[in-house]
Amino acid sequence: MISAQPVFHIASLSADSDAQLKLELQAKIDNKTKPLGALGQLEALALQAGLIQQTLTPSLSRPVMLVFAGDHGIVEEGVSPYPQAVTQQMVKNFLAGGAGINVFAKQNGMSIRIVDAGVNHEFAAHPNLIRAKVGLGTNNFLHHPAMTEQQCAQAIFKGKALVQIEAEAGSNVIGFGEMGIGNTTSASAIVAVLCGLPVAECVGRGTGLDDAGLRHKAEVISAAIDRHQTNAQDADTVLATFGGYEIAMMVGAMLEAAERRMILLIDGFIATAALLVASRLQPAVLDYCVFAHCSDESGHAKVLAHLGAKPLLNLGLRLGEGTGAALAYPLLQAAVNFLNQMASFDSAAISRQGEA
Amino acid sequence: MISAQPVFHIASLSADSDAQLKLELQAKIDNKTKPLGALGQLEALALQAGLIQQTLTPSLSRPVMLVFAGDHGIVEEGVSPYPQAVTQQMVKNFLAGGAGINVFAKQNGMSIRIVDAGVNHEFAAHPNLIRAKVGLGTNNFLHHPAMTEQQCAQAIFKGKALVQIEAEAGSNVIGFGEMGIGNTTSASAIVAVLCGLPVAECVGRGTGLDDAGLRHKAEVISAAIDRHQTNAQDADTVLATFGGYEIAMMVGAMLEAAERRMILLIDGFIATAALLVASRLQPAVLDYCVFAHCSDESGHAKVLAHLGAKPLLNLGLRLGEGTGAALAYPLLQAAVNFLNQMASFDSAAISRQGEA
Repeated sequence: MISAQPVFHIASLSADSDAQLKLELQAKIDNKTKPLGALGQLEALALQAGLIQQTLTPSLSRPVMLVFAGDHGIVEEGVSPYPQAVTQQMVKNFLAGGAGINVFAKQNGMSIRIVDAGVNHEFAAHPNLIRAKVGLGTNNFLHHPAMTEQQCAQAIFKGKALVQIEAEAGSNVIGFGEMGIGNTTSASAIVAVLCGLPVAECVGRGTGLDDAGLRHKAEVISAAIDRHQTNAQDADTVLATFGGYEIAMMVGAMLEAAERRMILLIDGFIATAALLVASRLQPAVLDYCVFAHCSDESGHAKVLAHLGAKPLLNLGLRLGEGTGAALAYPLLQAAVNFLNQMASFDSAAISRQGEA
Repeated sequence: MISAQPVFHIASLSADSDAQLKLELQAKIDNKTKPLGALGQLEALALQAGLIQQTLTPSLSRPVMLVFAGDHGIVEEGVSPYPQAVTQQMVKNFLAGGAGINVFAKQNGMSIRIVDAGVNHEFAAHPNLIRAKVGLGTNNFLHHPAMTEQQCAQAIFKGKALVQIEAEAGSNVIGFGEMGIGNTTSASAIVAVLCGLPVAECVGRGTGLDDAGLRHKAEVISAAIDRHQTNAQDADTVLATFGGYEIAMMVGAMLEAAERRMILLIDGFIATAALLVASRLQPAVLDYCVFAHCSDESGHAKVLAHLGAKPLLNLGLRLGEGTGAALAYPLLQAAVNFLNQMASFDSAAISRQGEA
């Protein structure tokens, strides 16, 4: 257990106090000029947004995409076809505006912040770069825990602090994305241990491993799990052992965002692995989450199913960076907009089902 | 066969002349700063947009949503839980800006035009209403063909003409939606006949039929199919016999849009049934189509599979109006934007897969 870990208090949205609001929201949804249930998942999303914000008229303000970047010692084991330098190169690409996440966040009106959680490079200052480095990359977790418990707690704490800043600036919806060569290996190990799944079900091709590379990646993860013998009930030790600085920082950021009743847009496999850890520390965090998409990375569907999550998109994406979350954001907007803007049967003088 | 039917000439995008452009587009996509294929379906969409527009830099201009409305004589048989008057009431709701399609089209920057293809009501003039009425609702196709061949050809011709107007105003992307109490019954009959599928597989609850209503709807459709004995090879006769004015007008509009190399955003079950007819008349129309979503209306997945279509969204929508197309539009924008705006490995100085 991590003694220095910050404390979070997240309200469950299934509390009795929400029951009346839930009824009122459902009645408002059902009275819109459409057959009952005809907007499918968008209706559930509108209900969730209303419950999170405790209102019949939820709104989205200052949507922001946080992209957490970190390096991973495990890349020494040859688990990625890309060199570690790509993490820092991609951070520079984010800062220059040339990456997928830049394009999609800009299109959909989201601000973007790049968080250096622990890249193996010292960056110059940049207006969109948040310097929150915990270390110059994690340890190789095949041989040592990726982080010390203190480093892990520090990363969680920094994640909490930077969401406070966004919340105080008026943001009520945050997308969670990441960059880190090797981080699908971390995420696979975390998911395998916390969900009690065979490694083979949790491991995927990442940025593009071939069959031999995939087998090797699974062997490395299995060997590391055997070596550390962590307790699946002890999520923060699992996080420190197999995680990354960007993953741990996301955990803190997610918990803080939920505590502040923000809407969390969860991107792909790595962001969902971070959420899995967060949900073991505070199960109610899940009530605040919108699952953006099911990625093509094979472990993602498993962890989504484990969390009982129904993602909005399924486009075969496997880019990370928060791209799925940015692409799904207009669907969240649509849910809030129909709830606020559509006419009701009464206001529009439309006959109801069964009326002559 | 309909002698007065307008003639369309749609170019196939798999012609040899497109092979070089296809290679160049794929190379451009593959050189973006992402793992190969990591943007999944968006990559196929970017390729398609480039081929349609015959350029490495496709763009979307003046996106417009056409919502075709018409009434159906078959509602006399009790196939919908809503009264026929809802068609005209919803048209007024569209014109007042209160319907789902208004909210989503506005959110995503699409213009909207409501087309009176054959509603059983005379509307006053309105800037967003296109008066293209062929008749005051179709005949009850349980007893008579829904339209005469002349009426059907007139509807196709009007659809063609109104897309000409949009194209000449500078639009290069059109969403196809509809409104018409009873039109899932028409669409189910068309799909059953043209795809040679059992009626039970093509019929759904529409706006909300119960089990008995669903059985009755299937019986009505089966009886009508038995009565008319249309030839499945004769798509325009099938359209005239079981279709609606809004469906036939969509057929003409879709064919004209493809001929003008516009991008067609296909909404739900009824729009897809119209496209099925269009594709029997001109198979190359399919090359221009983006399938927005798979609706909750149980024949939709069948006809999508029949067309080999892979829709972008699967949100359990069953509202029609073009709502799925409007919701999917940002994904089409994202495809075009990543192709135009993302950095390449060279421009961003990112190491490639396998580089040290």
